[in-house]
Amino acid sequence: MMLSETAMLSDNMFSQHIMELLFDIGNSHTVIGLHTENSHFKIWRIGTKSFETEDELFSKIYTLFQVDGIRKEEISDIGVSSVVPPVNYIFAKLGEKYFGRATQFVTPDAHVFDIGYKVDYPQEIGADRLANVFAARKIYGENVIVIDHGTAITIDVLHRGNFTGGAILPGFQTAMLALFSNTAQLPQVELKIPKYSVGRNTTDNIQIGVLKITILGIERLIEEIRKETATDFTIVSTGGIGKFLQGSSYIFDTYDSDLTLKGILYFLRRN
Amino acid sequence: MMLSETAMLSDNMFSQHIMELLFDIGNSHTVIGLHTENSHFKIWRIGTKSFETEDELFSKIYTLFQVDGIRKEEISDIGVSSVVPPVNYIFAKLGEKYFGRATQFVTPDAHVFDIGYKVDYPQEIGADRLANVFAARKIYGENVIVIDHGTAITIDVLHRGNFTGGAILPGFQTAMLALFSNTAQLPQVELKIPKYSVGRNTTDNIQIGVLKITILGIERLIEEIRKETATDFTIVSTGGIGKFLQGSSYIFDTYDSDLTLKGILYFLRRN
Repeated sequence: MMLSETAMLSDNMFSQHIMELLFDIGNSHTVIGLHTENSHFKIWRIGTKSFETEDELFSKIYTLFQVDGIRKEEISDIGVSSVVPPVNYIFAKLGEKYFGRATQFVTPDAHVFDIGYKVDYPQEIGADRLANVFAARKIYGENVIVIDHGTAITIDVLHRGNFTGGAILPGFQTAMLALFSNTAQLPQVELKIPKYSVGRNTTDNIQIGVLKITILGIERLIEEIRKETATDFTIVSTGGIGKFLQGSSYIFDTYDSDLTLKGILYFLRRN
Repeated sequence: MMLSETAMLSDNMFSQHIMELLFDIGNSHTVIGLHTENSHFKIWRIGTKSFETEDELFSKIYTLFQVDGIRKEEISDIGVSSVVPPVNYIFAKLGEKYFGRATQFVTPDAHVFDIGYKVDYPQEIGADRLANVFAARKIYGENVIVIDHGTAITIDVLHRGNFTGGAILPGFQTAMLALFSNTAQLPQVELKIPKYSVGRNTTDNIQIGVLKITILGIERLIEEIRKETATDFTIVSTGGIGKFLQGSSYIFDTYDSDLTLKGILYFLRRN
């Protein structure tokens, strides 16, 4: 898979294709996804605080495009999901100035797959969560729980095709950092979950406290949601750190690294 | 209880008593506990960063003592549990200069109730956790799990009279703060646990994510510890924020607000 993915995104292929340029703007990092007609994503990551203008942003993208022989004329649409509103105008300007088209921002107004919003304030839903829900609905059906591991962990519940809400908590690295910056005595530790439940040293105390307790808590929350709704959900994990949980004995039915990008793509193609 | 506590700590009572002065030095706050022979604690809280010298510290204590007519000559011993080593010398100097006696610091070397340490590095154990374990052993028996809710949440396992380790994770307020300082869109919320499991607005998303998932995770961890050890532990909750969990349907057998201070006291009285 990894070899062929690179191979298929060669110059010759690109020149025949129209591609969507997608941005998943998170608090720490922005994921840039280039989607080709043969359904591959070419992915780069840049710091969300690493550019202050559309020109700086474009120069980064231009360099990355050049390495793979991608021409900006091949971009058909630009879609953004952002949880950092202060940078949105940079992406709006990027579209106009360099790609000659309006950047499209994921919002709850977008009617993608007629998903209903059974929450108090649909306008409050983070764009990353919306994109996750779009993709979850399209790929995994009408009863899905998405767990997205980023700076924050977000849990999104799609029940009978409606987004009914969820939960949000600090991501693993955020939680560890919080433990260190507020305490005088704790060292940084590896993201690994011990099989046992009583830590014998500082490192495994933190691994059990931060990682295991969170995973066990999410697991039990999902059980409660299943009970409350009498519904059997498909559990989908995504987000950079979510990957390391694969192979653990935990709750996820599947890991989908590109879920948010896919959601932005379906949003662009909604009409 | 609250009225009588104040009443019993009047001038006349104090003049007849020898009292222990206890300090539970946490990352945010230092709890000052004055223990009288009739087993009451008079408690004050000060910021751990609110004093830089023994003179500043004493002037704070002196003022608080004056309000209740306490004389410094009535102090028989000074005990400290500290997780902030850089301030320890201030407390050492306080004892010498103002109370004419050595301040005693809780360390794993202290043989209190012949508790064994079945952990990798006994010297690594935080003094607050040691004090909790001392008190747990004395008051609640040989199989106890202590959950201490402070800046960090610490879980300590006392099994057959041995401290076998535990877990550490960010406290509720620390976790919430981490969520806000690292994300652009989240407001501060009340420490309240919704009964339902899918949040419908930002506030209950955070309450379910930060509070409920943590509590459910701790609950399940305790189940796993019970299973692994085939032991029925007494679950004791302590720490300022732990109080608000009383009355919830959760795991705690008992809430003991003064557990750490009691541990420092038993440490002082170990011989």
